Amino acid sequence: MNIDLSSVSTRAPHDVDKEKTKEKLVIILKELDELQNILYADGSHSLLVVLQGMDASGKDGLINNVFTFINPQGISVTSFKAPDQKELAHDFLWRIHANAPVKGMIKIFNRSHYEDVLITRVHKWIDDKTAGQRMKAINDFEELLQKHNNTTILKFYLHISKEEQQQRLLERTQNPKKMWKYNANDLKEAELWPEYMKAYEDCLHHCNAIPWVIVPSDQNWYKEYLVANEILKTLKEFNLQYPVKS
Amino acid sequence: MNIDLSSVSTRAPHDVDKEKTKEKLVIILKELDELQNILYADGSHSLLVVLQGMDASGKDGLINNVFTFINPQGISVTSFKAPDQKELAHDFLWRIHANAPVKGMIKIFNRSHYEDVLITRVHKWIDDKTAGQRMKAINDFEELLQKHNNTTILKFYLHISKEEQQQRLLERTQNPKKMWKYNANDLKEAELWPEYMKAYEDCLHHCNAIPWVIVPSDQNWYKEYLVANEILKTLKEFNLQYPVKS
Repeated sequence: MNIDLSSVSTRAPHDVDKEKTKEKLVIILKELDELQNILYADGSHSLLVVLQGMDASGKDGLINNVFTFINPQGISVTSFKAPDQKELAHDFLWRIHANAPVKGMIKIFNRSHYEDVLITRVHKWIDDKTAGQRMKAINDFEELLQKHNNTTILKFYLHISKEEQQQRLLERTQNPKKMWKYNANDLKEAELWPEYMKAYEDCLHHCNAIPWVIVPSDQNWYKEYLVANEILKTLKEFNLQYPVKS
Repeated sequence: MNIDLSSVSTRAPHDVDKEKTKEKLVIILKELDELQNILYADGSHSLLVVLQGMDASGKDGLINNVFTFINPQGISVTSFKAPDQKELAHDFLWRIHANAPVKGMIKIFNRSHYEDVLITRVHKWIDDKTAGQRMKAINDFEELLQKHNNTTILKFYLHISKEEQQQRLLERTQNPKKMWKYNANDLKEAELWPEYMKAYEDCLHHCNAIPWVIVPSDQNWYKEYLVANEILKTLKEFNLQYPVKS
């Protein structure tokens, strides 16, 4: 199915109550903590959470707020920046594969292999043919993790509006607690909004064998609730128990 | 200074109030969360927390309870198990070095390079001469991290009594939530208590250039408070601020 992101709302539906949603989130987070303990004790499954979204879509904040109660021993975050020389000397999935979750663990990818068909494409570092080949490789790779190591993959696209992004980038120049995140280049990158939307739409379309969740993300409370709830649902479906030894 | 662990209490002093200590812990944990954010934003220092202790001394529980509010993006836990074939083909510090913290991060070692002069020594896999050489190498290695990458190292020995250990190992055979931790071998290992104490005393003595903190650990509430407070003190001494960009 082709996706037109401009037709997808970046906000919560009007009938969703903010305060009630926040209360629900607290309950979900406590359940997550318990289910993660069982996932770790059981040691047969793993969960890979892929977070993608434009600059300032709130990936960092999401990680802090949704995974805050989780035992740090059972979770690990990998942030993928621009690849270094050694990584560039390998295929684009080499560094990703090296960071795939081990059994029993939750792994968060803050950005991911999808950057290799996003920023690279927007800047025309790769052509459409290569992008197509990479998306095929990504599908095969995700299937490998899922089928051969019992890894469930949840892919979230944090969907914000251009206006919200501009406001958040501006805030980074003014809020002393956020200034360290400011990068003059982000504003230049933001001008490529239409190109990014096109590249994202293509990913969402061609890499949907393991489906994407499009998360309306202009409001942090709604974004956090949706993501946490999706993860809870998935962990529940694993239907795991503390192992019994005789 | 030589240490006689049998003369060090494994319990809180009688005048320490449990409920008040628990209240203080909650406040400390919130402060830790904020200071870790600054450590991450600043990106010039790192903190390495080394946790050692006998089986069932509560390393896992400590990690869950003391670091629970920390942003998972700023913390990473490495649990060192028996070395695998590839690791054994290197010197004993190779796998440790590979897991040293990067700037801006808190790294927890759940067990560590100290196992290479503890379990190895108790079972006589290495002789005293090799143990002495290893302890020298450990001191040099810790100095390297501290001087050449701005890594502050906090080393905690979780000090429990033999009776408390026996009780906790027994609980693992009965509590369904803890049964997955049960390992028949732990009971055999526990019989080597005096040998372990001797090996620990030697470590505490010879590897004290970066000093050990001996943590009375029979009571979890006291253990957690002491460790959290020590970490808080250390992070405060860094005296870091959110970076200002112009």
